[in-house]
Amino acid sequence: MPEFDEQQIAAQSWFRSLRDRITAEFERIEDEGAALPALPNAPATPARFSFTPWERTDHGGAPGGGGTMGVMKGRIFEKVGVNISTVHGQFNPEFAKNIPGAAEDPRFFATGISLVAHMANPHVPAVHMNTRFLVTTKRWFGGGADLNPALPQDEDTIFFKSAFERAGNRHSPEFWPKHSAWCDEYFHIPHRKRNRGVGGIFYDWLGADTQAEFDHHFAYTKDVGETFLSTFPAIARRRMAQGWTAEDRHALLKYRGLYAEFNLVYDRGTTFGLKTGGNTEAILMSLPPEVIWE
Amino acid sequence: MPEFDEQQIAAQSWFRSLRDRITAEFERIEDEGAALPALPNAPATPARFSFTPWERTDHGGAPGGGGTMGVMKGRIFEKVGVNISTVHGQFNPEFAKNIPGAAEDPRFFATGISLVAHMANPHVPAVHMNTRFLVTTKRWFGGGADLNPALPQDEDTIFFKSAFERAGNRHSPEFWPKHSAWCDEYFHIPHRKRNRGVGGIFYDWLGADTQAEFDHHFAYTKDVGETFLSTFPAIARRRMAQGWTAEDRHALLKYRGLYAEFNLVYDRGTTFGLKTGGNTEAILMSLPPEVIWE
Repeated sequence: MPEFDEQQIAAQSWFRSLRDRITAEFERIEDEGAALPALPNAPATPARFSFTPWERTDHGGAPGGGGTMGVMKGRIFEKVGVNISTVHGQFNPEFAKNIPGAAEDPRFFATGISLVAHMANPHVPAVHMNTRFLVTTKRWFGGGADLNPALPQDEDTIFFKSAFERAGNRHSPEFWPKHSAWCDEYFHIPHRKRNRGVGGIFYDWLGADTQAEFDHHFAYTKDVGETFLSTFPAIARRRMAQGWTAEDRHALLKYRGLYAEFNLVYDRGTTFGLKTGGNTEAILMSLPPEVIWE
Repeated sequence: MPEFDEQQIAAQSWFRSLRDRITAEFERIEDEGAALPALPNAPATPARFSFTPWERTDHGGAPGGGGTMGVMKGRIFEKVGVNISTVHGQFNPEFAKNIPGAAEDPRFFATGISLVAHMANPHVPAVHMNTRFLVTTKRWFGGGADLNPALPQDEDTIFFKSAFERAGNRHSPEFWPKHSAWCDEYFHIPHRKRNRGVGGIFYDWLGADTQAEFDHHFAYTKDVGETFLSTFPAIARRRMAQGWTAEDRHALLKYRGLYAEFNLVYDRGTTFGLKTGGNTEAILMSLPPEVIWE
């Protein structure tokens, strides 16, 4: 499998170029916000991403690809992680049963981008975005993007979600209804009787077994990335200069407790990754920088 | 089952009286530490426990007992929860399979005490203690106590663990070797390749099907409570006046991230409770008051 085919290379290249554009845009936001009030421990000069490569070894010790963690701790972005990875190897037999196409042959390839931003200003929502391309004996895309404000504002929610609605509709009338409902269902926190955030999209198993399917679902997955770039930075710019009180910050830190609870108790990527020897540092980059539980 | 027998009443009474003694002792520590430097948001006067009763309804809506949460947010105890509960009802069939004696008859009774203390001073360890008496068609005791310092100090660790070693040895030569090893195994965090704390004891399924067994294991369970009372308060008093730096506090807040990860990802009581409709507020009282994930 280390010889990647055209689809694998195209997907990997897209995720990397998307990472480059997103991190550059986030750094521009740090530049633009350099004169704004910031947290006491924020850097004095505009922050930059720090990138750390990591390598995966397969369970048998064989090379299995790897990835690059990108982290920035700034004045506007209190903590943001933008990770890309391209990994391959063999699923263990027990796990393979639950993965499409892996029961027949446990070999897999996965490439993707994963992003979580926790913002210093309580009026700027936190955000999560992740898209990926999986190859076993089957091929598919998955991903999602959802907005996580401590202090929800309809204007932002509508702006964000309607953009993803239009993105879905550009590719299939089924995508938005299905993927927005999936998002609401996935990010539910039963023990809090509420959702983690205000919604967005979540999707998986968008098949790519034919070239036409690949093209269709790759185009949608790219559009999800473009839609993220055309929405979240705009929301951040709209809100980052808004004044906030100690009470607002307190509400943010409490909200982040809920965010951490979802990720550690329910999020399949997180719990699966931690329990199967994934890269702990990359997985837990999603956790908020500062949290309170009262 | 609402008619409790002598064993059930004896256990419930013990847990309540232990709760009373522990909370009184913790309040005395707050009194003694009233003049010590404290966190900016700490109360100006010595804190007291606030007690909140709650009621459980069985899945069928029938009364199922309840409990009392006790919380104190003080100058020495940044956040401490001491909960007691006595609940009864029916396990759902799927869950009953995994509980001794419940497959035959899903009715259960459980009474216990559960305590977690997060301390303001990074030199005072956090601590967890929990003991319980369970009744299905079988009866047993379970529990544990473990020390969770951000900045471990051998003197405290040895003092705490050797006291529990002596407590075990008073009741059976098997207890300390078995229960200390079980503690080390239970509180392991695979994704961090380390344990949550520095150890203590963890035990379960100490049978109480005969009166002699009940007497034996109840006596041990009481001794665990007494040993907690004779160790942790002494450690708190020994350390609470020790000066600490911003770096020490930072290390504490980072350590608490690990503590929260264990409880939310691995702790069976927490994840089971959250996923089966337990009292969220009481369950999550174990989470630290303030946490950072860098």
